[in-house]
Amino acid sequence: MSQPTAAMIVIGDEILSGRTADVNVQVLAVALGRAGIALAEVRMIRDIEGEIIDAVNVLREKYDNVFTSGGIGPTHDDITADSIAAAFGVGIDVREDARAILATNYANPEAELNDMRLRMARIPDGATLIDNPVSKAPGFTLGNVHVMAGVPKIFSVMVESVMPTLTGGAVMLSEELHFDRGEGQLAKPLSLIDAAHPLVSIGSYPRAKDGRFTVNVVARSTDADALAAAVADIRAID
Amino acid sequence: MSQPTAAMIVIGDEILSGRTADVNVQVLAVALGRAGIALAEVRMIRDIEGEIIDAVNVLREKYDNVFTSGGIGPTHDDITADSIAAAFGVGIDVREDARAILATNYANPEAELNDMRLRMARIPDGATLIDNPVSKAPGFTLGNVHVMAGVPKIFSVMVESVMPTLTGGAVMLSEELHFDRGEGQLAKPLSLIDAAHPLVSIGSYPRAKDGRFTVNVVARSTDADALAAAVADIRAID
Repeated sequence: MSQPTAAMIVIGDEILSGRTADVNVQVLAVALGRAGIALAEVRMIRDIEGEIIDAVNVLREKYDNVFTSGGIGPTHDDITADSIAAAFGVGIDVREDARAILATNYANPEAELNDMRLRMARIPDGATLIDNPVSKAPGFTLGNVHVMAGVPKIFSVMVESVMPTLTGGAVMLSEELHFDRGEGQLAKPLSLIDAAHPLVSIGSYPRAKDGRFTVNVVARSTDADALAAAVADIRAID
Repeated sequence: MSQPTAAMIVIGDEILSGRTADVNVQVLAVALGRAGIALAEVRMIRDIEGEIIDAVNVLREKYDNVFTSGGIGPTHDDITADSIAAAFGVGIDVREDARAILATNYANPEAELNDMRLRMARIPDGATLIDNPVSKAPGFTLGNVHVMAGVPKIFSVMVESVMPTLTGGAVMLSEELHFDRGEGQLAKPLSLIDAAHPLVSIGSYPRAKDGRFTVNVVARSTDADALAAAVADIRAID
C-alpha cells in the first residue's frame, strides 16, 4: 500500500517578512503522517493573486491533496478565496449556508455582520465548507484543495475537520537512533545499510551542541519488517 | 530605491515529515530584511535530485538571490551539491581549497578525512566558498545561488558570511499597532487607509487568546514619511 501525497501553501507576508515563525507546517505534517499521507512540498508565498493562482494550479495537478493557510479573514489583504476561485475558473459569491454559520458568531447579526465580515462567507462555486469550531468563519474544500485559516488555533481545528474526509494510505513508521559522534564516522556504514534496504529511507541529522557534534539517524518505512531489519543493522554499527 | 528579491529552498525530509520544525526561514528573513532584500518565496522540498534541480532553476531565474539549506553533509542523503551542479550543467569534484579547509577540522586528516567526509569538499565548477566558522565544511555560491547547511547554528553563521557579498536595497520599515477587538471592526477603515497610501502595505493579523480575538496591524514601507502618514491614520481609527 502506498502513500497519497500532499502539498501545503502558506499564504502571507507575515512569515516571509520574518515577523512571525510558521508553526502550521509541522501541525499539518504530523496530522497527515498519522493518516498515511506524505507531505511532499511546502510553498510560502506573498499575498499576490497571480502567485496564489500559479502555486495552486501547479500543486493540485502534481499532488493528491493541497492545503492552504492564511488570507481568508475579513480584511483587504485577505484574497485567498477569490484567488482560489480564479485558479479553478469558477464564480464566487456570499453563500447562504456560510452566512448563516457566520451569523451565529454575533449577538446582533443584522448590525454586526457588516460588508467586510461578509467577505468571510464568500465561497467559490462547487466548494464544500470546512467546519471551524473556534471562530465559526468556515474554510472550504474545492476539488482537492483545502482552504484554511492561518491563525494557528483555527488552522489546527480545520485540519481536524478535514482529516476524516481524506483518503489515507500506509502509515509511515519511523525509528530514531542517537549516536554520540560526528556524522563522518557513520556516513559509510549508513550508505551501505541504506543501499541494502530499498524499502527503508535512512536520514542522518547532525546537531551542534556545546561545540560537539552528535547525530540522530532516522529510519522510515511503511513496512514494519523491513524497518526492523534496517534498524538492527544501524544498531550494529560499531 | 527598490528592494532586490530572494527565495529560499529548504531541502530535506526532516521538516516535511513533521519530525522537526524549521527555524532557518525566519533567520534568513530577518537578515535579508536588515539588508533591504525581500524574501519573496520559500519552498520546502524532498531529498530528490529532480525536485532540487527544478526548484533551483525556476527560482534563480525569478528572483535576484536564492538560498538553499540542507543536504551538504557527508552522508548518502546529502545530494544538494551534486544537484546544484546538475541544475547549472557544470562539473563537480573535490576541490583542493575546500579539502584544505576541511582538513583543519581533524587532528589526523590523513586517516580521518575519509571518502565520505571528502564529499563535503565536492564543489561545483565556478563556485566560490562560503565560510563556516562552526564546523569548517564550507557552503558555496554559484551564480546567484547560495548553498548552505541545514543545521541551524551553521546555517546562521553561513548567512552572516554571505550577507556582505549581497547587493542590498531600501530597508523595509515597519510599525505594529495592537487593537483589542475583532478584525471585522477594523476591516473597513483599514481597507480605506490601505487604498489611500499606495507606498505602504498594511497587513492585519488576528490572534485568538483565551477565547477573545485581538489584531496586530502591521504597516510596512521603504518610505519613512509615507509610513508615518499611514500609521497616523491607523491610530486615528476609533
